[in-house]
Amino acid sequence: MSTAVSPLAPPDFPEMPVIAGVRLATAAAGIRYKGRTDVLLALLDKGTAVAGVFTKSKCPSAPVEWCRAKLQGGAARALVVNSGNANAFTGKTGKASTALTAQIAAKAVGCSTSDVFLASTGVIGEPLDATKFDGVLAQLAETATPDRWMDAAKAIMTTDTFPKVATATVKLGKAKVTINGMAKGAGMIMPDMATMLSFIFTDAPLSASVLQSLLKAGVEDTFNALTIDGDTSTSDTLLAFATGAAAANGAPKISRAGDPRLKAFTKAFQQILADLSEQVARDGEGARKLVEVVVEGATTKPSARRIAMSIANSPLVKTAIAGEDANWGRVVMAVGKAGEPANRDKLSISFNGIRVAKSGARDPSYNEKEVSEAMKAPKVQIKVALGLGKAKDRVLTCDLTKEYVAINGDYRS
Amino acid sequence: MSTAVSPLAPPDFPEMPVIAGVRLATAAAGIRYKGRTDVLLALLDKGTAVAGVFTKSKCPSAPVEWCRAKLQGGAARALVVNSGNANAFTGKTGKASTALTAQIAAKAVGCSTSDVFLASTGVIGEPLDATKFDGVLAQLAETATPDRWMDAAKAIMTTDTFPKVATATVKLGKAKVTINGMAKGAGMIMPDMATMLSFIFTDAPLSASVLQSLLKAGVEDTFNALTIDGDTSTSDTLLAFATGAAAANGAPKISRAGDPRLKAFTKAFQQILADLSEQVARDGEGARKLVEVVVEGATTKPSARRIAMSIANSPLVKTAIAGEDANWGRVVMAVGKAGEPANRDKLSISFNGIRVAKSGARDPSYNEKEVSEAMKAPKVQIKVALGLGKAKDRVLTCDLTKEYVAINGDYRS
Repeated sequence: MSTAVSPLAPPDFPEMPVIAGVRLATAAAGIRYKGRTDVLLALLDKGTAVAGVFTKSKCPSAPVEWCRAKLQGGAARALVVNSGNANAFTGKTGKASTALTAQIAAKAVGCSTSDVFLASTGVIGEPLDATKFDGVLAQLAETATPDRWMDAAKAIMTTDTFPKVATATVKLGKAKVTINGMAKGAGMIMPDMATMLSFIFTDAPLSASVLQSLLKAGVEDTFNALTIDGDTSTSDTLLAFATGAAAANGAPKISRAGDPRLKAFTKAFQQILADLSEQVARDGEGARKLVEVVVEGATTKPSARRIAMSIANSPLVKTAIAGEDANWGRVVMAVGKAGEPANRDKLSISFNGIRVAKSGARDPSYNEKEVSEAMKAPKVQIKVALGLGKAKDRVLTCDLTKEYVAINGDYRS
Repeated sequence: MSTAVSPLAPPDFPEMPVIAGVRLATAAAGIRYKGRTDVLLALLDKGTAVAGVFTKSKCPSAPVEWCRAKLQGGAARALVVNSGNANAFTGKTGKASTALTAQIAAKAVGCSTSDVFLASTGVIGEPLDATKFDGVLAQLAETATPDRWMDAAKAIMTTDTFPKVATATVKLGKAKVTINGMAKGAGMIMPDMATMLSFIFTDAPLSASVLQSLLKAGVEDTFNALTIDGDTSTSDTLLAFATGAAAANGAPKISRAGDPRLKAFTKAFQQILADLSEQVARDGEGARKLVEVVVEGATTKPSARRIAMSIANSPLVKTAIAGEDANWGRVVMAVGKAGEPANRDKLSISFNGIRVAKSGARDPSYNEKEVSEAMKAPKVQIKVALGLGKAKDRVLTCDLTKEYVAINGDYRS
């Protein structure tokens, strides 16, 4: 595993406030490595609503199947996350393992197993020994405190080089409510969902269905507009929890998705998702450049998205960015292979605001030196104007470096 | 560019026989680098039939558009191939450049421009100065000889580390006919078509429509079942030429695709395509392992193909192979993300014949040491049994190494 922190990491972390109704604790349960913090328990007060979106993989992990089933109830009392083992492709053992983990957690917390949510990240295909949680979760339940946000974000990391957190405080009615989020990503990241694991917590009194609507709308242009390597995890999980504790301060209970009082909250919630998903791109395995692909002038937004994803997933485009080479030819290739409406002779392409190609050929004003200089920036924007319609879209990715190959060439060993 | 020959290169090259009606010559025209052989002229006798299949890119190169238009005539007298510049995304200049090249060639050969076929490979987005062919093609037309097959295969290389040729001699009726083929590949390779450039020549007297049928059927399980990096070139071109010269030795003229006399020829033709496409996989940029992905037990063949391609294009699977790691978890991921029918709990996965996963979990007989040993082989077969139906398919690819990133991170500079 890589040890150096990504050069694209944010310069500092936000102060993470307490969320009434949420307590956190972490431990080293020896899931894969001895002495490494690998379990997070989040305790949620009674009345907490839950919503979630998951990988679209046809071979989802056992915890994903568990959460999907338990979402029906809409209520949560505990979240157990482990790193080191994804409990994916583990057959009947995997299913038994989730059930046992939930039993241990439910006993520790004093709730029903239906109110326990699970997420696992790490190696696929290895049985997860849930007995390792025995004792550990009970101890965590006793020692959990409301302030351990950074510890929690660190506990869920695998090949991540920095913990990913975001926070916002916003008015709901006349009361202040808070949203905290954390994520882990790094590799095997492509919609849908993009990040492997992300958890959002708020004290706003939202019903489960409101929370679900916010999530569904929120991921479209954030986590689902993000790709590291085009590989969709079996475990991608984004869960949101609303404790409702802010009702005590006068925050109104919201049970309808279109409620106008939700406006500021919705914006802040969306911003948290955008912030976390950008952090995941900034910590793509081996990443040295954050890459924003903007496609405009498309016939439809889904068409713009597919072209943007074709560019963002192209190994040739990504290696060119790693080499600080404004190789617009490869961008043309990626537009062409997307299979979406495109007219070669109407295409214009810019790198970091400098137009290099226009009307299907090199821009007459092209200046190699100027472009080369611009490509040295840590963030590279590739903008493609298709010249066909008015739709646009944007996705985030990172470059493809030798470090990506090194990280993934000996991950299991 | 990489200079070392791929460790997966064939140990030797076949003796390439003469094909009556075909003469070859190469030169250094200074298209991109001075003193490097970068032009091939193939002279074809009167009566030569031609067929072709091309990239499905929505932004094809100017030579691809030229060839598509000229195929209507079904007759060829000259093929001009240059490396160094793909004449793709070059706008009106590109179109003018193909017309000028064809004019120069037609004058040199003494034929109509409609009988001139063109292919260009190399950098995209740079104008191709066709005046560089002036004089050069006339000289090549004068000096062309029937025996320069290896020179020709070398002239069309870009980042290839070895020239790719194949030959077969087979009976058509009672006469011997010969098929010679060459290809160049290396990167930006994914159906449809897989290789950037490939040319097949035969002295068999086949009509253009027969040749087109043979090509169309032949690429399906060869060039279209091949991927290096999932990136489809703007320039992919496979042309086949039949001089008909073997008619003088008594070979029957074939003008119907289903003609039973074609049986042996069809098999040999298909074998040439299979041979060349495998050589392209063996020379994938930075490749250290040839990877064969076999998917069986699928509901349909297209479904098996899509799952096989999802595995073959997964950066995580490809880097695992580079690391000699039988990481079946990543194979499960790639099956899951394909979006095709798959049941996690019925999946079995083998590496080089050793079953590592069975019924959706690790094979009870799994022996890490035995598998690790098997992964050291230069060819790795990944076999996935879906357990759903009877359809199967197979694709070829290579591993993803740091050298791929190095080759593509500074290609233009």
